[in-house]
Amino acid sequence: MSNEVRLIGLSGIPEAEPGDDVGALIAQGIEHTGLRLEPHDVIVVTHKLVSKAEGRLVDLASVTPSPFAETIARRYGKDPRHVEVVLQESVRIVRMDRGVLICETRHGFICANAGVDASNVPPGWVSLLPLDPDASAARIRATLLARYGVEHAVIITDSFGRPWRNGIVNVAIGVAGMLPLIDYRGQADTFGNELRVTMMAVADELAAAAELVTGKTRRCPVVLVRGYTYLRGEGYARDLVMPAERDLFR
Amino acid sequence: MSNEVRLIGLSGIPEAEPGDDVGALIAQGIEHTGLRLEPHDVIVVTHKLVSKAEGRLVDLASVTPSPFAETIARRYGKDPRHVEVVLQESVRIVRMDRGVLICETRHGFICANAGVDASNVPPGWVSLLPLDPDASAARIRATLLARYGVEHAVIITDSFGRPWRNGIVNVAIGVAGMLPLIDYRGQADTFGNELRVTMMAVADELAAAAELVTGKTRRCPVVLVRGYTYLRGEGYARDLVMPAERDLFR
Repeated sequence: MSNEVRLIGLSGIPEAEPGDDVGALIAQGIEHTGLRLEPHDVIVVTHKLVSKAEGRLVDLASVTPSPFAETIARRYGKDPRHVEVVLQESVRIVRMDRGVLICETRHGFICANAGVDASNVPPGWVSLLPLDPDASAARIRATLLARYGVEHAVIITDSFGRPWRNGIVNVAIGVAGMLPLIDYRGQADTFGNELRVTMMAVADELAAAAELVTGKTRRCPVVLVRGYTYLRGEGYARDLVMPAERDLFR
Repeated sequence: MSNEVRLIGLSGIPEAEPGDDVGALIAQGIEHTGLRLEPHDVIVVTHKLVSKAEGRLVDLASVTPSPFAETIARRYGKDPRHVEVVLQESVRIVRMDRGVLICETRHGFICANAGVDASNVPPGWVSLLPLDPDASAARIRATLLARYGVEHAVIITDSFGRPWRNGIVNVAIGVAGMLPLIDYRGQADTFGNELRVTMMAVADELAAAAELVTGKTRRCPVVLVRGYTYLRGEGYARDLVMPAERDLFR
């Protein structure tokens, strides 16, 4: 049974407070779960833990909505202060229709509400995406590398909707220590045909896999993936952002 | 370590031939791997195995391209017979630009080349998506249910590209025995906030997770997922297709 990947939810990770070292919180979880970090493990973290530790929370009571935010909020039945935060986190509105705001964030991600989210935060607050999730992932990895001394990768996730399909899925918004894409172009399949256009977004698949364990309402923000052989390298979640000139669905 | 999901690649599954019973091939794999099917296991199958068993292969030598297929093929540097098959598998062209054909299939899926694919098939042939992948999944499940008598779910997958993100990821195109979406609306998060718009496409996340084990060039078309508690029910992959009237990106 060599061909097996394990998705292990870490227990014992406390609520993060601004200023917390996320790598240290994860190490606490690894040890609480009775594990050690092993070579080629992948640590998959929901971004909310990172956002909280980085102080990326906004008290809506502190927000003054602009006239445009007021207009949108009235039209869509939303909180104008929430809309204001969404606009401040956006560099472009991709679609605004039927109560949905699909935004491009400054990272280049395209998602509902620019990643601004009111779930799993105190009532009256919203969370934002980390400012630089690739850098956040690299910091977590540096902490765990110093502590355990083993080669591993870190992925930070959020849940995004997709055109054409119902429901949201976890994707990678921060990556460190691995290549997020596997390029099969030029390799042969089992019939000897050359695979021509296959780039697998494995970091997104690892993110999606982890969500099966973290769920939405359970207090388990980190999954340790064991048994998956990722490609080591200087990879970033920004590699997963399709360049505008290749995007048919801007 | 209760919060764990295992993704186990099945060994010993032979190449499928037209007319093969896919459920029987999978049972062979389960036993070859030294496993038994357990309650709540999820069997995730790459569609190519199903397509081959269902005879959904086309010899390009048998295809006469239409004038339109010839035009497109000349413009994009493609094989006109391959383009002809893509057009025959499509009910709508969503985008046709820069050498890419994004098509709506008769199932409602939107993907490159309507799922017509030349990889992992004999040279000169292409594979098509199963005619009714939900029905294919239900047949596999019926075979395994008869053999093992335990409640389980079956997912059939393909790899689709996504707007805005590089690379392709595995998604569910056929489902049996489980609900492909978990609706968290009305449930409370860990802070007691009501979760408002969260529908997780867990069948797509299971499909993505399985791809970490099946890969593209290894001969491992089936993954057994153990430890994930899906929601039992009459679910279908067609539930994952966003209705046209709600789709902002037609």
